[in-house]
Amino acid sequence: MSKPFRTTRLVEFHDTDMAGIMHFASFFHYMESAEHELIRSVGYSVHSRVDGQLLSFPRVAASCEFHSPARSEDILDIEISIVRIGNKSLHYQLEFSIEGRKVATGKISSVCCNVEPGQPMVSVPLPAEIKEKLTRYLA
Amino acid sequence: MSKPFRTTRLVEFHDTDMAGIMHFASFFHYMESAEHELIRSVGYSVHSRVDGQLLSFPRVAASCEFHSPARSEDILDIEISIVRIGNKSLHYQLEFSIEGRKVATGKISSVCCNVEPGQPMVSVPLPAEIKEKLTRYLA
Amino acid sequence: MSKPFRTTRLVEFHDTDMAGIMHFASFFHYMESAEHELIRSVGYSVHSRVDGQLLSFPRVAASCEFHSPARSEDILDIEISIVRIGNKSLHYQLEFSIEGRKVATGKISSVCCNVEPGQPMVSVPLPAEIKEKLTRYLA
Amino acid sequence: MSKPFRTTRLVEFHDTDMAGIMHFASFFHYMESAEHELIRSVGYSVHSRVDGQLLSFPRVAASCEFHSPARSEDILDIEISIVRIGNKSLHYQLEFSIEGRKVATGKISSVCCNVEPGQPMVSVPLPAEIKEKLTRYLA
Repeated sequence: MSKPFRTTRLVEFHDTDMAGIMHFASFFHYMESAEHELIRSVGYSVHSRVDGQLLSFPRVAASCEFHSPARSEDILDIEISIVRIGNKSLHYQLEFSIEGRKVATGKISSVCCNVEPGQPMVSVPLPAEIKEKLTRYLA
Repeated sequence: MSKPFRTTRLVEFHDTDMAGIMHFASFFHYMESAEHELIRSVGYSVHSRVDGQLLSFPRVAASCEFHSPARSEDILDIEISIVRIGNKSLHYQLEFSIEGRKVATGKISSVCCNVEPGQPMVSVPLPAEIKEKLTRYLA
Repeated sequence: MSKPFRTTRLVEFHDTDMAGIMHFASFFHYMESAEHELIRSVGYSVHSRVDGQLLSFPRVAASCEFHSPARSEDILDIEISIVRIGNKSLHYQLEFSIEGRKVATGKISSVCCNVEPGQPMVSVPLPAEIKEKLTRYLA
Repeated sequence: MSKPFRTTRLVEFHDTDMAGIMHFASFFHYMESAEHELIRSVGYSVHSRVDGQLLSFPRVAASCEFHSPARSEDILDIEISIVRIGNKSLHYQLEFSIEGRKVATGKISSVCCNVEPGQPMVSVPLPAEIKEKLTRYLA
């Protein structure tokens, strides 16, 4: 049975704004870092050579709803699941909370691309071995 | 008849990433700056004192779809419209393009809040004068 | 005998730029986060109420020399020492390295300020208890 | 007789922090953007192909002293001069002010590098034509 990948992150001072809270755009940085940590947890990197291709996972869509504020040095609990594995795409859902209080809910869709330097970036099928390993986080 | 607010922005080097393109999270910074420029265009600031209240507009939701890459020093054409003016909230839509090529489509929802220092942040009705002035950008 | 405070940090994808390396300005974010972690290690926060004052530590100077590149997902070893404790100021030195290779050397000077909301920011003497606890990191 | 390159920039909300002022690290982003604008003003790009080489200008040193705070939507006046043109390096000085009030003074040193994708980044002599054009900003 699958489980979300869980991590934590302290809210950094530079991610706050003059309203005294974590800036909304910084949630997208934290979402990306959680996504990449999940990918490392199955032995890959977000920018790695697999089967002779240099694969990267640019985002095609990202969204976030903000339920309550996060403040400097708060510890965010982050849960990230994969809601769908497409032929070339990965669709994540993330929950941010602080001591049980819901802070934000986000989604990211990434597409597997060959990003060989000097060539146009082109989407390619997800290698079977990556797909298989990521199923452990499929919601 | 209403029209979108239009602005342009050069993609800054520090907003690119190692994939050679503008990082997806930076679009949310550019969206915010366009939102604030729109608010200034009707004579207000995103963080200003109106009728004895210190008003700010924290975001409750933000999303973006990425259609094609933007690169360092590209000039982004940005169109921003208001799709709905609620009692306490503003809902924007944004289109990013480069020389007619669609780059990204975004949405932001902001809530009018009283952010008096030392008091809890609380949502308040949009002042009538702001509402009225913003109708010019209502899609 | 004093020792530097040591921490590590993985280079995040969003901190890279199109040259394929960690962007120089992001080192200042990582420097700040190490500074704040050091302050937490002696039981304080960078933005905390001490003796009835709301203290914060804005920077008055920051510099960094970049010796060799850091790349996405590299693990930075960070050493931070205090080179001088003034009456109102703290002066830090930081060394960044990756597996023994020197990456960057930085300095930050911060001033202890009372940042009571609604009042002008004013520098104040460092509380004696903070000074004493920080001497453990004095180089 | 040489003159500094002058530009202006509005302080963006996302560049403020919970102390209510522009975050110190964001000055390095604004310094970079001014440096790149100066380079564009003589007809080059910070990442461009010249004489068959893909040239970029990574920073080897950066520093800034902060004299007084900048706040959201303040207009920064920025003056940037070149204090020295080396064989492979460029050394800039920057002054930030708001309505005549000194805000910050910064320095950047950049090295001309060949950053051909897939090859190690290596420093190379500044092309003579770039050197010549930049002398107009030599302090």
